[in-house]
Amino acid sequence: MEKKGILLVVSGFSGAGKGTLMKELLRRHDNYALSVSATTRAPREGEEEGREYFFKTREEFEQMIAKGQLIEYASYVGNYYGTPRAYVEEQLFKGRDVVLEIEIQGARKVKERFPDTVLLFVSPPSAKELRRRLTERGTESREVIENRLKRAVEEAQGIEDYDYFVINDDLNACVEHVHQIVQCERSRTGRSREQIQSIREELKTFSK
Amino acid sequence: MEKKGILLVVSGFSGAGKGTLMKELLRRHDNYALSVSATTRAPREGEEEGREYFFKTREEFEQMIAKGQLIEYASYVGNYYGTPRAYVEEQLFKGRDVVLEIEIQGARKVKERFPDTVLLFVSPPSAKELRRRLTERGTESREVIENRLKRAVEEAQGIEDYDYFVINDDLNACVEHVHQIVQCERSRTGRSREQIQSIREELKTFSK
Repeated sequence: MEKKGILLVVSGFSGAGKGTLMKELLRRHDNYALSVSATTRAPREGEEEGREYFFKTREEFEQMIAKGQLIEYASYVGNYYGTPRAYVEEQLFKGRDVVLEIEIQGARKVKERFPDTVLLFVSPPSAKELRRRLTERGTESREVIENRLKRAVEEAQGIEDYDYFVINDDLNACVEHVHQIVQCERSRTGRSREQIQSIREELKTFSK
Repeated sequence: MEKKGILLVVSGFSGAGKGTLMKELLRRHDNYALSVSATTRAPREGEEEGREYFFKTREEFEQMIAKGQLIEYASYVGNYYGTPRAYVEEQLFKGRDVVLEIEIQGARKVKERFPDTVLLFVSPPSAKELRRRLTERGTESREVIENRLKRAVEEAQGIEDYDYFVINDDLNACVEHVHQIVQCERSRTGRSREQIQSIREELKTFSK
């Protein structure tokens, strides 16, 4: 009666610290598997096939779409990005918890296909802090920062579609909180159907 | 923007260890308040007004019903049992998490009135273990034990109405797990509306 793993979708404002959060979650705890996206965009320096992305030609990607091999996909600045289905299903079946970083449209699609998915939105403690983090990187132009803030306004519209709204103030605390959310989700009645049914059957044999 | 507390309803088979579980939860963690029921049954030896129950006359109890002062009530073996509304609301408003031990009909009524309530069903790891615990007490007759097991069969029918199904195998682990469930519930999007709205408004002022 081994339980299936939990599919955890992480979204959040650019600058919320999703990347570090997920990296730490996987480094500290054994049971997670990171879903790697497929994309048609060219690899950047230092990126490795199967680590950052599975790099595909447009033709290959469109074949994956046609064959239903992607849980969700989207087109962004002329390139495709998508989540390969096989890896996610394999890992969940093995009982591993799969972490997936995508934005809101993708998150909604995943939840439609896998209603048990846990959707988590990560936010800095305040919008001011978000701006500070974006500015402090120092690598982005003023224009890029302003675009990210504008995008954040749009993203903020959809937060209610998520199950959890997690504040990333202290990284350490946030990683453990997210890990706990996954542990607590395991005890949801909807995920314990077999266990409940088994106790129910056993009880009946006693009261005969 | 202090958050309201969480109302936690605990139900479970007789012999699941609910009582000890809740006692430990309150002893170890500060933020909980235990809701004390009102009843028309006579106090037993050692029971104190306001600790085990608020003891009421039938007339007083029926007045409480008439005035809407009870969140839920039921009649059991000729006596009324109910949950006084004022205490629960006061504590929640102060940000304390209120724990309430009632059975399934009551749990359903509470969830109707307070849809944010977290319903938790506690179970031993197996029906065999439940029978063992009931038998080991040594204080109950064979007939009482059999009645409890029969009752357990009925109770088991309603488990899907609960949010969480928690196995009480190791008391220590179970107390901390339940505490974590309450902590994780705090991050539910539905409980974070004000926080989300506040970040949303703040973001808008930036992108103007």
